[in-house]
Amino acid sequence: MTDYPTSIGTASATSISLLGHDLAGELMGQVSFGELAFWLVALRRPEPGELRVFEAVLVALADHGFTPSAIAARLTLTGAPESVQGALAAGLLGGGSRYLGVTEDCGKFLSAALAQAGGRPSDEAGWDELAAQAIRAQRAAGRLVPGLGHPVHKDGDPRTPVMYAIAAEAGCLGPHLTLFAAIGRVHPAILGRTLPLNGAGVCGAALADLGFSPDMLRGFALLARTAGLLGHLAEEMRNPAGNEIYRQVDEAVVYQPPAS
Amino acid sequence: MTDYPTSIGTASATSISLLGHDLAGELMGQVSFGELAFWLVALRRPEPGELRVFEAVLVALADHGFTPSAIAARLTLTGAPESVQGALAAGLLGGGSRYLGVTEDCGKFLSAALAQAGGRPSDEAGWDELAAQAIRAQRAAGRLVPGLGHPVHKDGDPRTPVMYAIAAEAGCLGPHLTLFAAIGRVHPAILGRTLPLNGAGVCGAALADLGFSPDMLRGFALLARTAGLLGHLAEEMRNPAGNEIYRQVDEAVVYQPPAS
Amino acid sequence: MTDYPTSIGTASATSISLLGHDLAGELMGQVSFGELAFWLVALRRPEPGELRVFEAVLVALADHGFTPSAIAARLTLTGAPESVQGALAAGLLGGGSRYLGVTEDCGKFLSAALAQAGGRPSDEAGWDELAAQAIRAQRAAGRLVPGLGHPVHKDGDPRTPVMYAIAAEAGCLGPHLTLFAAIGRVHPAILGRTLPLNGAGVCGAALADLGFSPDMLRGFALLARTAGLLGHLAEEMRNPAGNEIYRQVDEAVVYQPPAS
Amino acid sequence: MTDYPTSIGTASATSISLLGHDLAGELMGQVSFGELAFWLVALRRPEPGELRVFEAVLVALADHGFTPSAIAARLTLTGAPESVQGALAAGLLGGGSRYLGVTEDCGKFLSAALAQAGGRPSDEAGWDELAAQAIRAQRAAGRLVPGLGHPVHKDGDPRTPVMYAIAAEAGCLGPHLTLFAAIGRVHPAILGRTLPLNGAGVCGAALADLGFSPDMLRGFALLARTAGLLGHLAEEMRNPAGNEIYRQVDEAVVYQPPAS
Repeated sequence: MTDYPTSIGTASATSISLLGHDLAGELMGQVSFGELAFWLVALRRPEPGELRVFEAVLVALADHGFTPSAIAARLTLTGAPESVQGALAAGLLGGGSRYLGVTEDCGKFLSAALAQAGGRPSDEAGWDELAAQAIRAQRAAGRLVPGLGHPVHKDGDPRTPVMYAIAAEAGCLGPHLTLFAAIGRVHPAILGRTLPLNGAGVCGAALADLGFSPDMLRGFALLARTAGLLGHLAEEMRNPAGNEIYRQVDEAVVYQPPAS
Repeated sequence: MTDYPTSIGTASATSISLLGHDLAGELMGQVSFGELAFWLVALRRPEPGELRVFEAVLVALADHGFTPSAIAARLTLTGAPESVQGALAAGLLGGGSRYLGVTEDCGKFLSAALAQAGGRPSDEAGWDELAAQAIRAQRAAGRLVPGLGHPVHKDGDPRTPVMYAIAAEAGCLGPHLTLFAAIGRVHPAILGRTLPLNGAGVCGAALADLGFSPDMLRGFALLARTAGLLGHLAEEMRNPAGNEIYRQVDEAVVYQPPAS
Repeated sequence: MTDYPTSIGTASATSISLLGHDLAGELMGQVSFGELAFWLVALRRPEPGELRVFEAVLVALADHGFTPSAIAARLTLTGAPESVQGALAAGLLGGGSRYLGVTEDCGKFLSAALAQAGGRPSDEAGWDELAAQAIRAQRAAGRLVPGLGHPVHKDGDPRTPVMYAIAAEAGCLGPHLTLFAAIGRVHPAILGRTLPLNGAGVCGAALADLGFSPDMLRGFALLARTAGLLGHLAEEMRNPAGNEIYRQVDEAVVYQPPAS
Repeated sequence: MTDYPTSIGTASATSISLLGHDLAGELMGQVSFGELAFWLVALRRPEPGELRVFEAVLVALADHGFTPSAIAARLTLTGAPESVQGALAAGLLGGGSRYLGVTEDCGKFLSAALAQAGGRPSDEAGWDELAAQAIRAQRAAGRLVPGLGHPVHKDGDPRTPVMYAIAAEAGCLGPHLTLFAAIGRVHPAILGRTLPLNGAGVCGAALADLGFSPDMLRGFALLARTAGLLGHLAEEMRNPAGNEIYRQVDEAVVYQPPAS
């Protein structure tokens, strides 16, 4: 007999249960939306310090201006103004390996390095050694180190030190953030240049330290971006840019018919 | 010369501005994700009471079990496990007129009735009269009254009284919630039966009282549902149901080839 | 007992049936893809003339350059190059009421006018009278006549006469195309200016004459556009424009922080 | 100065060009939709034999019953019946690495093996040797051989011999199909059991032999599936199954609240 176990929610004629609690009586008005999002994925309620780190991550990742994803959402609303869900979905679909992937990639990279190390280093020199090994292995595989470098914030991503301060204050400086900091210290000697630890990367490290599976990190980046995209769509409704973006791009197109 | 004005955010080499504030220095760790979502759409920071109502709405709408939308997200992850954004987008695409539409429809219905009334009634009898007119006009147009009735919570949706209590305590009981309550009082005499004010409807009324345009109400329902869908996708990653759902449905298919 | 009747297809260990035929033995190599698409929706095999009209419609609607939808697909591929399905879906999501809606709206408009007329006119004067009534009713309702006018092809959409010629030759000039032609004749006297019958509109009329429900017309426009979007995505893979479009748009953004 | 070269199409006030040809005068009514799709991606018109193979591939891949993708599309239409594009997009989003990936994976696998081989074998023994090397390398890397095996068609996929016959007749039996056939001959001795060459795999080999880049193979599987999904959506409009699928699944859900 087929059945599908779920730990999320259920409803009867008189009550709605969410995560084992009464939605109306125990959650509404008592739990923030960020807290609920953490809980829905982790299946445990965050500690106050964990929640502060988690909400800071969502705030840090919510928007970054007229990104390809935000532009795609606006253009989609232009063509289908009756379907907010379609425009939002189109924006989220751009949140893939290249655009929102750093958070996930960085979490996975740190997590794999920690798994391979077995135990945790006991001092800063030990962390630096682990970081150096991880960077060298990544380079030997012909890959970039995720979370290092930023096209705009070349001298330092302002989100990074703030995230470390919040995590430290909240008692959430775990092995992923610690290893990521060590990468920040040791990479110049290995790579021959100093790159900033970027905001997407530090968010991945922070989420991994909260105990989330690397496979869910992109999901949280998407949740954060949903709020940013709603901001763009509301702005597009008030003051449409989509048609003008279309016109501007279309004007720059040069037709080069194929040979055959 | 084309330019696109935006009030959302911008970035320079050393700072990231969001909503006119320094993202790292003024928002991260100091603003909840729910607060930021309100702010991004409204372009103003919510008062504490408004924020409490807003987060309660998001919590109320986050999940409702194995809905068509949650099942579609899980099935999509089954086929494309590498693309969390695709599974999330598929789930959100089911958030249309029928499934997440009540929140928006109810906000629009109340908003239109208030716009047509011109001034606000001065007492409960006045609100009841306005409610009765709105119901009668809706019925005359052959349409249902949005926010009335629920397939499961036939004797009362548990979210509704809680939302009223939160809004009252927060000083956010505005005209939309007031009119919706009046609809609850007067509809039995007009329709000949008593229906509950449902949770999706009361959320629409509450969001409209927070000053949001009816066109954005579906957007907030989608934001809320994003958290719920991440919960389903995390559960699907831990304990896959998609293949079994597919098998169960497929087994029940009966082939009836067309005549020609 | 739940079961789901389907007329599309089924499979056993040794055969695959599609539309009541053996896929491998009777369809592959013997039916064109366009023919199969018609058949899958109509549940009947098209006559050769019908197929010729149908394929001409799909060809006519396949592409129209760097549309908002094509740009959104390219930008989505930029962010998520590993997910062709996501980029394609993003492009299709812009195919809504405004962008691909004319085909559907025109089919629905003509279909409603014919339904209201009851019988079919017996001569051109009768068709002109029916067309005039339909235009006047549409204007009285404050709506535009779908299929009339084009932002670029102001003196005539080149697709329209070709579609009429193909339909006439194929014996598929039914009531929808006939009424649409009458609208072309009578609208100048009513509207006070001469507008072209556009290509999207004539395609809607042609599909309606093939017997398709108006609710499926947008679906065929989307099928046609899928081929066009694949062309854009293949071009984007060979010669990426997405990052440059992003840079161009981003450069034109002017930040106007909100007051509060 | 930004400009975006395109070889797809352009339009002036009096004409529409597609692929360097006049859309109305040279393509509508003269080119099938399948032919246009080939041309849009390849930027060259297919030979008649190539077109026959190509359309056979699209026909072979168009549908496979109530797949996760078809069920997701139907459920999405249930929630958002006003948005055919959303339901179609949701269905396509399930066309990822697991569900529609075999066509692409097989094309890539064969293509990589041929690239590594350098020259082409001159006789069947040479092809068998190349096939054996490719299978052994794949196994050594811990991966399955794409295109081998089928959960239902255990004794042979009926599409495979038909595709070979069509390709042979059309003069399109290129190196990918030839190598794939060799894999069919040599794998039992290496793997210790006989598996069928499946239909998705043979379609990938056939498309690769038509000269398409492996990165576009998933795109054609999606195009084919678009027609199948329209069939499902049309059936869902005529005879809805979505609500019943939802009810059936929901009934089988067992609530297991989390510990904390």
